[in-house]
Amino acid sequence: MTEKMMTDPFTFTLKTTDGMARRGQFVAPHGVVQTPAFMPVGTAGTVKGLHPEDVADTGAEIVLGNTYHLMLRPGPERVAALGGLHKFMNWQKPILTDSGGFQVMSLATLRKLTEKAVTFRSHIDGTMFELSPERSIEIQALLGADISMQLDECLKLPAAREEIQRAMALSLRWAERSRRAFEARNATGYALFGIVQGGDDIPLRQESARELIDIGFEGYAIGGLAVGEPQAVMLKVVEETTPVLPAERPRYLMGVGTPHDLLEAVKRGVDMFDCVMPTRNGRHGMAFTRFGSINLSNARHADDPRPLDEASPHPAARTYSRAYLHHLIKANEILGQVLLSTINIAYYQALMAGMRAAIEEGRFADFYAGTMAGWKGGDIPPLS
Amino acid sequence: MTEKMMTDPFTFTLKTTDGMARRGQFVAPHGVVQTPAFMPVGTAGTVKGLHPEDVADTGAEIVLGNTYHLMLRPGPERVAALGGLHKFMNWQKPILTDSGGFQVMSLATLRKLTEKAVTFRSHIDGTMFELSPERSIEIQALLGADISMQLDECLKLPAAREEIQRAMALSLRWAERSRRAFEARNATGYALFGIVQGGDDIPLRQESARELIDIGFEGYAIGGLAVGEPQAVMLKVVEETTPVLPAERPRYLMGVGTPHDLLEAVKRGVDMFDCVMPTRNGRHGMAFTRFGSINLSNARHADDPRPLDEASPHPAARTYSRAYLHHLIKANEILGQVLLSTINIAYYQALMAGMRAAIEEGRFADFYAGTMAGWKGGDIPPLS
Repeated sequence: MTEKMMTDPFTFTLKTTDGMARRGQFVAPHGVVQTPAFMPVGTAGTVKGLHPEDVADTGAEIVLGNTYHLMLRPGPERVAALGGLHKFMNWQKPILTDSGGFQVMSLATLRKLTEKAVTFRSHIDGTMFELSPERSIEIQALLGADISMQLDECLKLPAAREEIQRAMALSLRWAERSRRAFEARNATGYALFGIVQGGDDIPLRQESARELIDIGFEGYAIGGLAVGEPQAVMLKVVEETTPVLPAERPRYLMGVGTPHDLLEAVKRGVDMFDCVMPTRNGRHGMAFTRFGSINLSNARHADDPRPLDEASPHPAARTYSRAYLHHLIKANEILGQVLLSTINIAYYQALMAGMRAAIEEGRFADFYAGTMAGWKGGDIPPLS
Repeated sequence: MTEKMMTDPFTFTLKTTDGMARRGQFVAPHGVVQTPAFMPVGTAGTVKGLHPEDVADTGAEIVLGNTYHLMLRPGPERVAALGGLHKFMNWQKPILTDSGGFQVMSLATLRKLTEKAVTFRSHIDGTMFELSPERSIEIQALLGADISMQLDECLKLPAAREEIQRAMALSLRWAERSRRAFEARNATGYALFGIVQGGDDIPLRQESARELIDIGFEGYAIGGLAVGEPQAVMLKVVEETTPVLPAERPRYLMGVGTPHDLLEAVKRGVDMFDCVMPTRNGRHGMAFTRFGSINLSNARHADDPRPLDEASPHPAARTYSRAYLHHLIKANEILGQVLLSTINIAYYQALMAGMRAAIEEGRFADFYAGTMAGWKGGDIPPLS
């Protein structure tokens, strides 16, 4: 624990619902977060390209940090000695850290998975690391995360049912060990989320959810999605899993997704999201807007004096012409990557704010229909 | 002309002097600039990595745009159609554009220099371009620059005297053609600067200056320096040239330099500077501070909780730890490049503000000595 200790428990309040869509908030040691919420990804202690003040100005109330990246560099003991991740990256609002498991599977080499832990070679410098459920909790405590995630095993889909079941069962045993390690921290106000696994197998997903509830967590994530499966499969898993989860705990769909994914998942009862898409796609010239996705490297924008969205709540989307953004992207200028990353996170936050207001006012179905209709104006159909 | 026309002439006011150091201001169509002034370089319509608001927050009152880069991409006619460079890049204060000549010599291939013009191949896509004195003035008018520069021929040093003389004489003939083309614009309030050439040959420099004064310009630049010669040679040329220039016109030392170069040149009567060093070196992990240059990629900063300068007027230099900046640079994070570029421009602006105050108060010699002493604390000796 590197940040201040709180005496208030981590609390989630479900304010109202509209269909399965939920409007809530949670109170974490570093602040209050309105849900449904989108968490920009701050992989290596920075939301790529943005000043932390600019992240907050988009409306973001919480960011995600990647345990895998931070354990490799600069190292969690170093971050703790420097006062924790909040101070290190100059972000004083809540931070959720993942467990490191997902990146171990996707980035590290020479992985070896045992009951005890996963050992792997750093993709940066080849150093060997061991990540156990207990070490993952320890790292997340050193970072000072408001919300920690259990270590789990995440498979690529499609996968054989026996393989999915094996990984799900291991993830549950790791969930229990993660919970014990977290309880030993005695960190009032901080939260640990369990992660539902089970691939695209609905009975396994529901079994995973029930077992996690028996262990007991401050929140529940749906993991192992957005790993190559069609959107319909993902949404099917979501809509069959959320009803099993307790209404009084937040639900977090990990690593998702497009604006359309978010709209569909909120409709199915999800409260929290994270995704690199607004920043990663922004760096490659794609803008997310009310009118759909716009590829600014396309030559047709070269002479276009219009801003991306003159009615956007974010000044960058109102100020700069499409021609200027096109120029910056073509010239590979840092500012182009910075502006589009900012504009995209701001759009994601505006979308979440729109959903929150619509749920409060009992008009989510109208908001859904209006948003879907708006996206038809972009380069890329929203239902791709 | 793409921006508003002004009826007030371009004026420079020399407020006071301290030794050869000068404290002044000039009034351009887009605002007032206090001198001595440092102009951050906005090569391709952006000061690399910085929001224009953040450039202004460093204290910068004018930026430089590169005619060569902008003529290649996005093209001056396009910028004019989009409302001019100020609007394009969202910078409403003054802009000085160079003539394009320097980059034609340093970046373009297949150059062919005639009395009429220089033809060259774009380093971006191989397109052939022709740049004459008249076309350079036309481009700078299309961009809407508050201050335009004459086209000149800039040599690398050392060079043979006959070659220096030939280039100087051509530059003077081009100065006259530039002046005629500029007068034909009839752009009250806008300025054209002549450029003193002559390499490291003092009599040629002084002859160049006198000939330019005969033509008559709103300001005079010293060009063709910071092209490989020792600092002492550069300073010798400066101190032998400024006395020839009229006191009532601003003097601009092009492409210079390190903080130490700026201090020495102001001492010798220079009013304006531009240089890519604060942004380029910042992108490579070097910070300019009161304590000298600090190379943040050095491992000794990895655990250092101190900010770069807790007394800096700029928040970024006070807020982020050296450990965090080291981490960002090692991880090749955009924010590291952005923060160091910003911190460096802010330091350059603080240095200029310090010199301006010292000249006003007749204590430039003390300021010079104190600043030189402060720089001894960095990684790199200021007199390198």
